Amino acid sequence: MILGKLLARLKEKEERMIAIRRYLHENPELSFQETETARYIADFYKDKDAEVETGVGGNGVKVTVDTGKPGRTLALRADFDALPIFEETGLDFASKNEGVMHACGHDAHTAYMLILGETLIEMKDELQGRIVIIHQHAEELPPGGARQMIADGVLDGVDDVLGAHVMSNMETGKVLYREEESMTGRGFFKLTIKGSGGHGSSPHLANDPIVAGAHFVSEIQTIVSRRLNPFESGVVTIGSFDGKGVFNVIKDQVVLEGDVRAMGDRTKKTIESEIKSISSGLEETFGVTNVLEYKDDYPTLYNDPALTRQIASAIKAADLPTVTSVEECEPQPPSEDFAYYTKELPSCFIYIGAAPDGDVYPHHHPKFDINEDALLIAAQAVGSAAINYLNGDSKE
Amino acid sequence: MILGKLLARLKEKEERMIAIRRYLHENPELSFQETETARYIADFYKDKDAEVETGVGGNGVKVTVDTGKPGRTLALRADFDALPIFEETGLDFASKNEGVMHACGHDAHTAYMLILGETLIEMKDELQGRIVIIHQHAEELPPGGARQMIADGVLDGVDDVLGAHVMSNMETGKVLYREEESMTGRGFFKLTIKGSGGHGSSPHLANDPIVAGAHFVSEIQTIVSRRLNPFESGVVTIGSFDGKGVFNVIKDQVVLEGDVRAMGDRTKKTIESEIKSISSGLEETFGVTNVLEYKDDYPTLYNDPALTRQIASAIKAADLPTVTSVEECEPQPPSEDFAYYTKELPSCFIYIGAAPDGDVYPHHHPKFDINEDALLIAAQAVGSAAINYLNGDSKE
Amino acid sequence: MILGKLLARLKEKEERMIAIRRYLHENPELSFQETETARYIADFYKDKDAEVETGVGGNGVKVTVDTGKPGRTLALRADFDALPIFEETGLDFASKNEGVMHACGHDAHTAYMLILGETLIEMKDELQGRIVIIHQHAEELPPGGARQMIADGVLDGVDDVLGAHVMSNMETGKVLYREEESMTGRGFFKLTIKGSGGHGSSPHLANDPIVAGAHFVSEIQTIVSRRLNPFESGVVTIGSFDGKGVFNVIKDQVVLEGDVRAMGDRTKKTIESEIKSISSGLEETFGVTNVLEYKDDYPTLYNDPALTRQIASAIKAADLPTVTSVEECEPQPPSEDFAYYTKELPSCFIYIGAAPDGDVYPHHHPKFDINEDALLIAAQAVGSAAINYLNGDSKE
Amino acid sequence: MILGKLLARLKEKEERMIAIRRYLHENPELSFQETETARYIADFYKDKDAEVETGVGGNGVKVTVDTGKPGRTLALRADFDALPIFEETGLDFASKNEGVMHACGHDAHTAYMLILGETLIEMKDELQGRIVIIHQHAEELPPGGARQMIADGVLDGVDDVLGAHVMSNMETGKVLYREEESMTGRGFFKLTIKGSGGHGSSPHLANDPIVAGAHFVSEIQTIVSRRLNPFESGVVTIGSFDGKGVFNVIKDQVVLEGDVRAMGDRTKKTIESEIKSISSGLEETFGVTNVLEYKDDYPTLYNDPALTRQIASAIKAADLPTVTSVEECEPQPPSEDFAYYTKELPSCFIYIGAAPDGDVYPHHHPKFDINEDALLIAAQAVGSAAINYLNGDSKE
Repeated sequence: MILGKLLARLKEKEERMIAIRRYLHENPELSFQETETARYIADFYKDKDAEVETGVGGNGVKVTVDTGKPGRTLALRADFDALPIFEETGLDFASKNEGVMHACGHDAHTAYMLILGETLIEMKDELQGRIVIIHQHAEELPPGGARQMIADGVLDGVDDVLGAHVMSNMETGKVLYREEESMTGRGFFKLTIKGSGGHGSSPHLANDPIVAGAHFVSEIQTIVSRRLNPFESGVVTIGSFDGKGVFNVIKDQVVLEGDVRAMGDRTKKTIESEIKSISSGLEETFGVTNVLEYKDDYPTLYNDPALTRQIASAIKAADLPTVTSVEECEPQPPSEDFAYYTKELPSCFIYIGAAPDGDVYPHHHPKFDINEDALLIAAQAVGSAAINYLNGDSKE
Repeated sequence: MILGKLLARLKEKEERMIAIRRYLHENPELSFQETETARYIADFYKDKDAEVETGVGGNGVKVTVDTGKPGRTLALRADFDALPIFEETGLDFASKNEGVMHACGHDAHTAYMLILGETLIEMKDELQGRIVIIHQHAEELPPGGARQMIADGVLDGVDDVLGAHVMSNMETGKVLYREEESMTGRGFFKLTIKGSGGHGSSPHLANDPIVAGAHFVSEIQTIVSRRLNPFESGVVTIGSFDGKGVFNVIKDQVVLEGDVRAMGDRTKKTIESEIKSISSGLEETFGVTNVLEYKDDYPTLYNDPALTRQIASAIKAADLPTVTSVEECEPQPPSEDFAYYTKELPSCFIYIGAAPDGDVYPHHHPKFDINEDALLIAAQAVGSAAINYLNGDSKE
Repeated sequence: MILGKLLARLKEKEERMIAIRRYLHENPELSFQETETARYIADFYKDKDAEVETGVGGNGVKVTVDTGKPGRTLALRADFDALPIFEETGLDFASKNEGVMHACGHDAHTAYMLILGETLIEMKDELQGRIVIIHQHAEELPPGGARQMIADGVLDGVDDVLGAHVMSNMETGKVLYREEESMTGRGFFKLTIKGSGGHGSSPHLANDPIVAGAHFVSEIQTIVSRRLNPFESGVVTIGSFDGKGVFNVIKDQVVLEGDVRAMGDRTKKTIESEIKSISSGLEETFGVTNVLEYKDDYPTLYNDPALTRQIASAIKAADLPTVTSVEECEPQPPSEDFAYYTKELPSCFIYIGAAPDGDVYPHHHPKFDINEDALLIAAQAVGSAAINYLNGDSKE
Repeated sequence: MILGKLLARLKEKEERMIAIRRYLHENPELSFQETETARYIADFYKDKDAEVETGVGGNGVKVTVDTGKPGRTLALRADFDALPIFEETGLDFASKNEGVMHACGHDAHTAYMLILGETLIEMKDELQGRIVIIHQHAEELPPGGARQMIADGVLDGVDDVLGAHVMSNMETGKVLYREEESMTGRGFFKLTIKGSGGHGSSPHLANDPIVAGAHFVSEIQTIVSRRLNPFESGVVTIGSFDGKGVFNVIKDQVVLEGDVRAMGDRTKKTIESEIKSISSGLEETFGVTNVLEYKDDYPTLYNDPALTRQIASAIKAADLPTVTSVEECEPQPPSEDFAYYTKELPSCFIYIGAAPDGDVYPHHHPKFDINEDALLIAAQAVGSAAINYLNGDSKE
């Protein structure tokens, strides 16, 4: 009954969801600068029966829907920042903010969540417990908005957290989930190797940082090959070896920048500590002086097994006409700052298939786009899970 | 008698030499673009009793002083191009051609040679055989002017070749020489390593050229350490490892550029062949595609022992008041396109100490300068050797 | 009823199981040489109502228990070879065959299986379908007995295969299982690098295989670090670098031997192909001549999910008094030639916790021992699964 | 006159020289164990008019021939130890001491020196100053006999030192010399890298010393390629990488042994210091524990230029009928403990061509042999130089 009503109302509002998404798509803002989007969100809730707090941990917006009845509190999180990318989609509603683009679907997240939030507010009397909607800024850029909003208390009183991501590389109609470690944690490092320059014909009067840097790259391979448990997952990529110079001049220094991915915080710590040892060893071996900046960033995203099973079951049970299957998926290589919520409370992050008809472009691509059917699917799937969470088995 | 006369005349013309050097210093031209300098040189010989050919192998100028009497033919070579360097000497006669500088002393070479040439022309009746003055363009930039002038016949009829270089890092008053291999030969290579790009978290979907490039740098070390005779001299420097990118993106390709120095052509050939093998092996090992450009450039400069001893003896015997010693020196790391003459004919290249009072800056430095006393020394030393060569022991 | 009867009978025969295990432990035989053990097994079935074939694919013994009634056919596999290890357990029934030891528990496997087989034969009339007992030789030594027995038709007419392994590192009382890829596949390689020897002071007259071998070791690291999907599991270990020589003599050749582990055949193929490329590249890079022997050996052990769930459920449902829990476990690093059965038919390989009281030594250790309670547990667990498989839910 | 007499007498005694050489060849003794040879030498001088000291710095024998007249003192050095090699020459006078062989010509050195010594003693009255004959033990094995004899005062009162070596790889009839640095100095190192062992499938539980050792080998290449002046000569060879093990077991430790050659003590010091840094860096980089033994051993052999010129001139001037030329040669890769004398006093070490007819085997080869004509040549050449040294130009 309650569930049926929610699903029907969301269906009725599908056009509005799409309109909101397109408006946001046209007006993207970069991470930590998304003030207009935050204002738009806050305005949306004006005159609605919910408590709205703005400026939470920066540009974050927290919306509390309190039924006044006893029960548990579920947070629903949707992020709203965009990326520094020049859009090439050719869409009618393409970005009007040149060089900035919603190329990861956060416009869709915000659109479905606003409509879902509105509907839950409307049905407040039929629900129990509390819903906290976390409209989060700055997911794309470390240190990320999640950490800031948590520090500012957004999780106070919350029991569990649920998030969803539209995925252009997953079939529209599918809802996917995974228990336990599901998305990698991440680190970044920048290594400046200082040798001493000189003429190419006299290497003994110089100290060649390119040779030292090359050995660093070789040595770093042994972290993944020999230091990690073969059943653990980790990657160290040196994406940048900045050693451009003149062919016959030995450089003063080179700068390497690298990306660390790991499933599991222990693995990430191992990698960090090995990189530091290898850098120290390099100084000793080659007589260079290194400056190593290491930034440990988003943790591994851990989906609470019990909560995840409950949410997956609820969505399956809702038997949504728009959903072809609810299934388990492989771990995902990217990182997500939703992971910070998972460190605090039992949490679950699900994927909403959103592959468009025709060409599919990956997230962060200038031609990235989604199938807009995914908005209703997201709203109905997350809505079903929320109803089930608050009111228990709601099919009666 | 003849020698004394030559030395005295040169001494009288010292001021003019310096004036010419300063004029040229103020008006430097880049290699292969030194048309005004070539015109200046040709103009200098106007109305003098010598045969002047311009446009020899490019901007080169050939001046033939034929005594009409039987005898041998000695070529004297002086180079006249400048470098792409912003001068910082603060001299009154600093470069007026911004970004171009006589930072290697070729202005001095040309100045002393013009005056020496003029004087030899004046004394033509007292001499025997022939003098060919090679005013050479483009020493600084491979493929170099020497090769072009040789191809254009500048050595036709010549028996031996003598050249000299002022050296800011050698004491003024010293004249130095070395038999046999004296300056390194040189090669250049540019290696483009093409892998395939991708996301830093998924190395298996890409092929990382930075990792391949790093192994190339390590492998290349074994050429000098294991392939060369320990009593031979060779260097392979990778001066540029152009792999700047984004920390979490695997690059498509990197470009390395390197400098090869070797004493002896066999050593240089060994290095070239090993670099090619290592590049091929890298393709096989890492599945990358390489484009290797290898440019074999100036050969090793080889001073003919007999000629060198004769010239050194002649300069010693001249007992020049400006010269404190005539002595053997170590091999020199730089390369010189005079080496091409040494491949064709018995040749000798000597060094004229030219360290200025006060701070000494190396060749090619924006503050490079010389002691102008070196001009007279060069003219008298080369002149003494020429007289001795043409007329035999001329002390009588 | 039937299950209860089976379990009770097995309990009654526990002492005999232990006696058989101790007899076998005292009389171990090496892989492919286990003729006496095979004869012992065949003799055991004499006068029992089952078809016994000996010499199956070597020393293997196949026992068919045919109920004459329609139904499916389940194979139960137990291996019986021992290892070339000098036993140091100090047990009363320690090996009498010096240098050979049952250090992996195959004595226990054979003991419980003989008694289970006898009991199933006794209860034949109450069962349906067929049981094929595979007493397999040579599990420890590639190419392994499984492949030989399969080639000799041991699986003809079989529908599914079940195996079990006692584990000294898992708690006694636990029965463990895992769906899908559960134990690594394996490969072995031996790389002979031929350079050319010489005097240490003249590397250019030799071609140093130690330098080439060292680069091979570095390069091989990149397979795991850059070529494998980070969510796949693979290991390449070079366990032997045989380059002992005289400090000042360059060797003619070195020999490296390595071990490959991979979860999934695709991963194993990737590793094999990369090792071959790296070896070829090494020849090109260093001018050495390589001989690479690569032996692809046991595949990844893949447990059929449906069969595994059925078996785990059956064991759980049997509610064995000796079993504290039936639970899922992590993938296991070792390799097992049971994997060959899993390539042919739906199969399942389970673990029987067998940690002894006191010190626990790993498999293949000279002091390896098990808790003999595990014999009854194995017989009852495998027996329960077999009854359930043949007769369906047998609790009624 | 005096020179003519000396040369004639040596010629007369040629047969005896050869007989002595063959006797010594048949009775070789290892370094530091050559007591019988020392006794043989001492016995030879019995009843001769010279002062003989035995047991000098070990088995060394010092013979002083004092003319009683004023003048300078020249030491003549000949070594007398043999090598641990199984002779395969098939000579009539092959070694009777199995496994020990005069495979470096020290038998010839001793033979010619005894006869030369005897002759100089006979002619004592015609000479001036003093001759000290150093019959040195243990040249082949560090720390070497030279150091011991010097420590025991063998050079007290000596002004200059002369030594000679027969060379199977130089044409018989030639006498060769080189000024300044002529034979390499030497060092030895043994590096034990301690990781921690484990199973090949679980590298993260072990610490693989083969991987660390491989990186050490790569890193060490950069010493010669980047740390040494390209005009200096140095070699680092790792002749032994003792890492034999089982293919699927990670080893506990590996042991590397290496040979260092360098021309010039500064170069040798650079190499030593870099090896130490690289070893320290390796510990840091890979978390291994290293034990590095570094033994600095024979220094660079430095021939005093003035003395060498004097000796070469004297030999040339003697116009020996047995000598086809006296010429300068290239530096020689091997090391010699004669180098220790060159650190103390002006010294000169010359080479006596001794290539046999037919096949030529290198020094230290089981088939090594020399042309016995070289004995007379050595005696006459060294004798000429000695006469010239003591009496000045002695042609009168």
